[in-house]
Amino acid sequence: MAQRYVRVQSHLGHLHYGLLHPDRRVQVLDAPPWLQGQPTDAELAPAQYTILAPCAPSKIVAVGKNYADHAAEMGTPPPPEPLIFLKPSTTVIASGSTIYCPPQAQRVDYEGELALIIGERCAQVPLEEAQPKIWGYTIANDVTARDLQARDGQWTRAKGFDSFCPLGPWIVRGINSAAHLQTFLNDQPDPVQSASIETMIFSPGQLVAYISDIMTLLPGDVILTGTPAGIGPLTPGDRVRVEIEGIGALENVVAARA
Amino acid sequence: MAQRYVRVQSHLGHLHYGLLHPDRRVQVLDAPPWLQGQPTDAELAPAQYTILAPCAPSKIVAVGKNYADHAAEMGTPPPPEPLIFLKPSTTVIASGSTIYCPPQAQRVDYEGELALIIGERCAQVPLEEAQPKIWGYTIANDVTARDLQARDGQWTRAKGFDSFCPLGPWIVRGINSAAHLQTFLNDQPDPVQSASIETMIFSPGQLVAYISDIMTLLPGDVILTGTPAGIGPLTPGDRVRVEIEGIGALENVVAARA
Repeated sequence: MAQRYVRVQSHLGHLHYGLLHPDRRVQVLDAPPWLQGQPTDAELAPAQYTILAPCAPSKIVAVGKNYADHAAEMGTPPPPEPLIFLKPSTTVIASGSTIYCPPQAQRVDYEGELALIIGERCAQVPLEEAQPKIWGYTIANDVTARDLQARDGQWTRAKGFDSFCPLGPWIVRGINSAAHLQTFLNDQPDPVQSASIETMIFSPGQLVAYISDIMTLLPGDVILTGTPAGIGPLTPGDRVRVEIEGIGALENVVAARA
Repeated sequence: MAQRYVRVQSHLGHLHYGLLHPDRRVQVLDAPPWLQGQPTDAELAPAQYTILAPCAPSKIVAVGKNYADHAAEMGTPPPPEPLIFLKPSTTVIASGSTIYCPPQAQRVDYEGELALIIGERCAQVPLEEAQPKIWGYTIANDVTARDLQARDGQWTRAKGFDSFCPLGPWIVRGINSAAHLQTFLNDQPDPVQSASIETMIFSPGQLVAYISDIMTLLPGDVILTGTPAGIGPLTPGDRVRVEIEGIGALENVVAARA
């Protein structure tokens, strides 16, 4: 099994990066692993920590319509260049946390996605040097208030509500380029989204090159690579689970915001 | 003269928040002033520091078309609700620093704006409690690649290039509600933008209430309140200066990015 990198809050209230062992013990690192964090002697038993999103990005850059089948279901042709937007860092929640549907939105959709974790400062990275800038991979749900997305034109509000970026549960260093992504709702046996990440229009390396030619990416920043076809609504009480082969499963419950 | 709050890098390489005295000495604070930073005994002479943008926001939330005359010049009616978008924190530069025009853009515009600095965590703040959440005010230039803004639809790229958010030079605690905003180019005596901030469609308090009902605002976060009419292009070699009565002047030079 690939090494899993986590971020946790200890029972003493401290935040740590760590290595997750198969028996769920966490070995504490002295810094984020992409900043050369090294294992310490400290270890946390499963009862001694809560899992957090696996990084705390200074920015989350997301890509729209990066699978042709999803662009088609949105009624638009695939974009000639990556279509980027930002989600605020306050959208991030961990696997196991609650997605809150705000009263402003009538329809809140899941969007299962592969997330890239940037390992070092990236400015104007040439395409041939882009792939090594990706330190690791995790799973994201780019939760979107579909009605507000259409109404506002700009997607910031629709994609920017608190809790609208479940991320995790952990980071792995590598992934099969044809890994399968699937999204499941509640106890339904059949996925609502199912695609190989190989069918992305712009590859992870192309995205890093394109984005870093606009804005400097910093260690721990996150790129969301877009969602395949099959988007659909979430309702309070639902459970939504995004699985990516070789990583694991990101699972969240849905509730109405007070 | 109102107290001016700055952020500086000392000649020793340290970052400090501070009070700027009229003789340009900086009295160092032990924390950001909105986090109850207190004056220390340390003082920096003018030769001992470089001025930075006055805060390091976790996010910059900007508002489009918040002056009716600017909405009209963009050929659109004023929006019924604030139209928000995000600029990445990597856009921020200090007064005196260089705005770089990237090769992807054919036209890069200035947009002089009043910026609000959030003092405390804000989530779902009612309108009547919003104004006190604004710790202070500074000046911003919401630099925009106008051709890419039209081409992309989403404004993230057009407004997200490194150096596209000059901010500063300092923060003041209060501002006259009818303060005048003016933008000047090079040595031209007449401003290219000139408006009272009173002519904003949505007031600073309304913006804090609206935005905090979507995303939690954190101490040091920045809201850009929109630009009045008179936008226009910048060319390498230009100097652009945004002045707001009661604050001061934010001045930057323009160069082509290599």
